[in-house]
Amino acid sequence: MPRRPHAVELPPIGELDRSSGQLGRQLAQALRDAIRAGNLKPGDLLPSSRLLADSLGIARGTVTEAYEQLSAEGFLESRPRAGTRVASALASQRVMDMSMGSGARKRPAKAPPIAMPEPAPAFARIAAQFKPLPQVPFAVSVPAGPAAPDETWRRLGNRLRARGSGAPSGYGDPQGVKALREAVADYVRRSRSVQCSADQVVIMSGTQQGLHVACQVLLGATDIAWVEDPAYRGITGILEGMGRQDRMVRVPVDDAGIDVDAGIAMAANARAAFVTPSHQYPLGMPMSTARRNALLDWARKNGAWIVEDDYDSELRFAGHPFPSLQGLAPDRVVYLGTFSKILFPSLRLGYAIVPEVLVQAFCGARLLMDRHSPSADQHVLAAFMKEGHLDRHIRRIRSVYADRRTQLITMLKRWIPADLAWLQPSDQGMHMVLWLAHGMDDTLLASRALEAGVAVRAVSPMYSAGNGRSGLVLGLGGFSNEQMEAAVHILAAIIASMKKVRPRRRASA
Amino acid sequence: MPRRPHAVELPPIGELDRSSGQLGRQLAQALRDAIRAGNLKPGDLLPSSRLLADSLGIARGTVTEAYEQLSAEGFLESRPRAGTRVASALASQRVMDMSMGSGARKRPAKAPPIAMPEPAPAFARIAAQFKPLPQVPFAVSVPAGPAAPDETWRRLGNRLRARGSGAPSGYGDPQGVKALREAVADYVRRSRSVQCSADQVVIMSGTQQGLHVACQVLLGATDIAWVEDPAYRGITGILEGMGRQDRMVRVPVDDAGIDVDAGIAMAANARAAFVTPSHQYPLGMPMSTARRNALLDWARKNGAWIVEDDYDSELRFAGHPFPSLQGLAPDRVVYLGTFSKILFPSLRLGYAIVPEVLVQAFCGARLLMDRHSPSADQHVLAAFMKEGHLDRHIRRIRSVYADRRTQLITMLKRWIPADLAWLQPSDQGMHMVLWLAHGMDDTLLASRALEAGVAVRAVSPMYSAGNGRSGLVLGLGGFSNEQMEAAVHILAAIIASMKKVRPRRRASA
Repeated sequence: MPRRPHAVELPPIGELDRSSGQLGRQLAQALRDAIRAGNLKPGDLLPSSRLLADSLGIARGTVTEAYEQLSAEGFLESRPRAGTRVASALASQRVMDMSMGSGARKRPAKAPPIAMPEPAPAFARIAAQFKPLPQVPFAVSVPAGPAAPDETWRRLGNRLRARGSGAPSGYGDPQGVKALREAVADYVRRSRSVQCSADQVVIMSGTQQGLHVACQVLLGATDIAWVEDPAYRGITGILEGMGRQDRMVRVPVDDAGIDVDAGIAMAANARAAFVTPSHQYPLGMPMSTARRNALLDWARKNGAWIVEDDYDSELRFAGHPFPSLQGLAPDRVVYLGTFSKILFPSLRLGYAIVPEVLVQAFCGARLLMDRHSPSADQHVLAAFMKEGHLDRHIRRIRSVYADRRTQLITMLKRWIPADLAWLQPSDQGMHMVLWLAHGMDDTLLASRALEAGVAVRAVSPMYSAGNGRSGLVLGLGGFSNEQMEAAVHILAAIIASMKKVRPRRRASA
Repeated sequence: MPRRPHAVELPPIGELDRSSGQLGRQLAQALRDAIRAGNLKPGDLLPSSRLLADSLGIARGTVTEAYEQLSAEGFLESRPRAGTRVASALASQRVMDMSMGSGARKRPAKAPPIAMPEPAPAFARIAAQFKPLPQVPFAVSVPAGPAAPDETWRRLGNRLRARGSGAPSGYGDPQGVKALREAVADYVRRSRSVQCSADQVVIMSGTQQGLHVACQVLLGATDIAWVEDPAYRGITGILEGMGRQDRMVRVPVDDAGIDVDAGIAMAANARAAFVTPSHQYPLGMPMSTARRNALLDWARKNGAWIVEDDYDSELRFAGHPFPSLQGLAPDRVVYLGTFSKILFPSLRLGYAIVPEVLVQAFCGARLLMDRHSPSADQHVLAAFMKEGHLDRHIRRIRSVYADRRTQLITMLKRWIPADLAWLQPSDQGMHMVLWLAHGMDDTLLASRALEAGVAVRAVSPMYSAGNGRSGLVLGLGGFSNEQMEAAVHILAAIIASMKKVRPRRRASA
């Protein structure tokens, strides 16, 4: 038998706090609570707004407002001449109980335990591996001291934000601000022999995003990708995150760069190759011309695409930078560059130079990811480049980093015995690899160093499973010689202490 | 028989331009060209650096530099006492030819045509559909006139960039700047009844990125997702881009929001539901309490996650905003908010409020996408919120938008006959839906409007195939009444002209 509607004279609500204002909101919350607590039940009739207003000593409009709000939320139902009632369609009491203030965080006894989503643990591991390093030696590209952009950057920004082009605006072009695309096209043509127009430039938040978009656009569900072994964790992480582990072929790298013959033997039919020809990451050598030609040859024969990650070619200390691979095959290569390293990482601006046929696809994938980069700093960077400040900044920091690098090499050779750790030869870039003697666990070493206030990255996770070599990536930033020297001493002590540690037995990979 | 090495007296290089400087670079390029042109062949011996320097009348160091550069690039090989030769390992002449200046853009006749990568066309279509609208009526959320943030935003930014916290820095926390996470947690607790701590806040570049990261983290390879029908193209586009079309179940929406029973009938075992409970996109009604409870009930029973896209709940014009779904089930709901709409879109800052167990996974997925949001504006926004400017701004624009909305409703009713187009009732948000009479093609209408300088979005592409209704999304921005009135007249004229168009026969969907 249906419960007879219960005509409520005055609903069971507590005191309203007149001093805090928002009486309508308070009343709505009180009624909501009363319904949730079961003090008002489905079908119950509420007093007229006039009656309730009088009895509470508040304006009638306040009550009307609360009734309308709760009607919109579905707690109440009003019909002309039938008055306002607690809605009869309110769903299960159990969920209603859940929504009550203090009870809301408790899980009901019968609900199944929350299972982690299938992809979540892998992403959580990535977060742990990429945990940002504190800005101490040897974090890479820390814009401190003489490596920081000078006051021009800030003053130019203030000017543009005041004048208009850097001011708040609506949604922008996913391809990026035109002035910046023009400046980038000019810059890469001039400095990197990249063949492109501004229409082929897609502004990205850095090479990480460029790699992500390239993976999405270039790789169909069953397509295979070549990735260098070792490689930047950023690219292997993306492919793992996309569930493409089984279609990622790790191609070994030797002193001339990626071993194209090995790649062909492993997977001649790959659809894309991700390479770092200017400065292999993390090892640091450039790809030889013979290998460049072989790679392009393979790509043309097999209809494959090449993604050229050119993350820090500005910093070559001997000779001038290699011309880009893109310049040799502009219809086949996606070229990625970034201002994170050369200007400052927290800016989050970089670019992809994309064959014309792929430009719209890159824009679409970028759009779905985050629509576009913030506009204001794109205008600032465009002006910074156009007025020649970037070229001056690069010349300046090239000499800063060359000096830091020489100093660091000297310190490492002096303080760390060569049988425990030695440097990988390289004449370019913002980092160096310090190899560790066999049996030293680089991941453990890196975490001990971090505890002692020194920031290094382990090299072994950059290799495919089972192929890892133990080493450390040391980044160059705007650190003083004193800071670097202190950090080298700490590192030397930790390395010496690890010598005594027996090699840990590894679980089979 | 191997070709006998050819000892070159003087290599066949052209003139060096002494006036332009960079002689080493010029010499390297000349030698590179000679090798590529076949004028210097693999194995050919080059003159000593001293001899070449003397004959060219340049410094010996300049020649050494060029030789070293070309050795690094793999063009030359040097051995002690054996002199410098053109490298014998140079790969195929065909690719070499390709790399020559003017020839580089021509595809050799025998190379297979370039095939588009499999995913590219779908992304290119997304780019076309999302093409940014010009900042004219009725583009959504254009921060012009009284809807723009006042000078406080700029002055505060200048102050923070000068003082340090907004200055250039190294890589930041993928979760976001702590001060901003604290300000966001405080804001959503206060204004949206969201239950969270700052540790559960992950700063995003907007709801688009929040949706993308949520899709990656929550959905395993075979998991099904519920998506409203109609829905924001941003979420359906992401799932299509991830190749998940077949695992996206479109659940119909009625006047009370998503039809949970229908969803259960279609796919009770879905792993996630993407919903817009405060203000269904695009239709504009809130989800009723009964539906909220039913949705949470289903999610708990089936171990599913709910993604609550709360893109513009600040702008409710009647009553105060609904409390969030997240507040009813904080361990089950991912809550997404954005400052794009309420502050300005080109800022690209928003946030996800994430159950504790998923925070690290969200950070990892964000990291792989673009590492983190630019730091400077995060600091500016944190201060803007902490100092109360955001609350003031919201109060101000709420009244601006309420006024614009009333004006626009009046204009539309006045100038467009109700049998051709009528408004969807809604009391919230920055946009309205104008339904079109049967047979009017909204996509065609939108493109004609754009040609005439009026920005609207078609509604039918937001529906699943075959279920589309014809309508237009009209956004509110800081446009003057004169601008809006002019745009309404244009729209009225186009709608009237389309009436005469016979309904186009649609291909079966």
